[in-house]
Amino acid sequence: MVKIGIIGSGNVAQHLIVAFQKSIYEGAGIQITTVFSRQKTALSNLLDFNIICSDWDNLKEADIYLIAVSDNVIAEVSEKIPFKNKLVVHTSGALSLEAINTKNRKGVFYPLQTFSKNLSINFKTIPICLESENSADLKLLKKVANAISDSVYEINSEQRKAVHVAAVFVNNFTNNLYKIGNDICIKNKIPFEIVLPLIKETAEKITRLSPLDAQTGPAIRNDEETINSHLAFLTNENQKNIYKILTQSIQNNGKKL
Amino acid sequence: MVKIGIIGSGNVAQHLIVAFQKSIYEGAGIQITTVFSRQKTALSNLLDFNIICSDWDNLKEADIYLIAVSDNVIAEVSEKIPFKNKLVVHTSGALSLEAINTKNRKGVFYPLQTFSKNLSINFKTIPICLESENSADLKLLKKVANAISDSVYEINSEQRKAVHVAAVFVNNFTNNLYKIGNDICIKNKIPFEIVLPLIKETAEKITRLSPLDAQTGPAIRNDEETINSHLAFLTNENQKNIYKILTQSIQNNGKKL
Repeated sequence: MVKIGIIGSGNVAQHLIVAFQKSIYEGAGIQITTVFSRQKTALSNLLDFNIICSDWDNLKEADIYLIAVSDNVIAEVSEKIPFKNKLVVHTSGALSLEAINTKNRKGVFYPLQTFSKNLSINFKTIPICLESENSADLKLLKKVANAISDSVYEINSEQRKAVHVAAVFVNNFTNNLYKIGNDICIKNKIPFEIVLPLIKETAEKITRLSPLDAQTGPAIRNDEETINSHLAFLTNENQKNIYKILTQSIQNNGKKL
Repeated sequence: MVKIGIIGSGNVAQHLIVAFQKSIYEGAGIQITTVFSRQKTALSNLLDFNIICSDWDNLKEADIYLIAVSDNVIAEVSEKIPFKNKLVVHTSGALSLEAINTKNRKGVFYPLQTFSKNLSINFKTIPICLESENSADLKLLKKVANAISDSVYEINSEQRKAVHVAAVFVNNFTNNLYKIGNDICIKNKIPFEIVLPLIKETAEKITRLSPLDAQTGPAIRNDEETINSHLAFLTNENQKNIYKILTQSIQNNGKKL
């Protein structure tokens, strides 16, 4: 039985807790034995109240501590764990292994997904990027990751930064394009639902074609007439600039920049 | 029985032919009676060879002619149809009703989707934007559209331009962000499949949350440390510029620009 301690009570912590609890019922050999949350009530609907502590002295022993807090407090939190030579991992895409305090063995357990409060998610499909200082710890991390996900990768800190940057493009920036699409629809009294099937197909298409082969539209066709008509239609400077730079990006596709 | 003529043999024409043929078997009261294709062989695997013509004089009578050709030849093609006072519609998101030659009754039948060769698609979920000069023609267009889609909208030319611009943002530009994500993965020896669940969830999330509420990531958190670390990581000027402008766009969200 692998004893897990969870530090944090935000979106990622909550989704991890739900996923590990599900794995416990599936007999994965995992147990959440201790949880640190500044506000104990934040997790009281998910966990037995007795295993939650808000005082570092009450944190119990575990084989692995998973730190699921904001990037800027990971170092501080990892220092506060009142044990030595335990495996302590963070769940951040942006930070290297070295963010963890040296008194414990360092690792990373980064679930690559966008988590929102109150939206349930199937953890089995979420890729988990693992990193550790030694192979015994990697083995332990794999056991824990496999308990909740079917998609586990060993990714070093430099590669994880690349994954995180790629994720910002395909998730955060894409969502901003959805937001712009939504704004254009609202302004022109068109229901946003009209573009939802297109959004869905755009995302599905690249499971069957490469993004290069999947590219359609006026930019890749060099259809200057449509491009100019769209630019004349847009009155918002932000939208206009994004239209220009992404049209250029599509047209430069394949060229080294 | 509504008799349909199809002009064109590209992606949109082919997907429409397949969808109408399916509707025929479903008893929708539609019949494809005549098809114009410059190269008859382009459609010979989809249709009875006898109803395809490559000479305008051989085009047969129909109640509606659907023009599914490139935007820049719609006007020319609509002029060549050897009939008068028929309902002639184009399938373009970018052009107004007025692109159709005045000798016939004008209309628009714009399926809002990204069509790729050899990728089958369920037409039932594709929104079709209709426009016509009078209500009788609109009624006829609705019958034809409802035969192949469950999602039919009446959208005027100005609104359709807005829909088309919104579609460029959520489809063409989003696909370019996928391409950049793919390029970053390749450069760092990471399998692109690692970000596919994130792409899928990003697209699904906005069916349950508004794009504004769905926004996550370093930009919306004003996490300058991560943003600067990502900008330092990116060496490609195009990627760097897109990163900056979309980060700014997320951070300006809600502000009037």
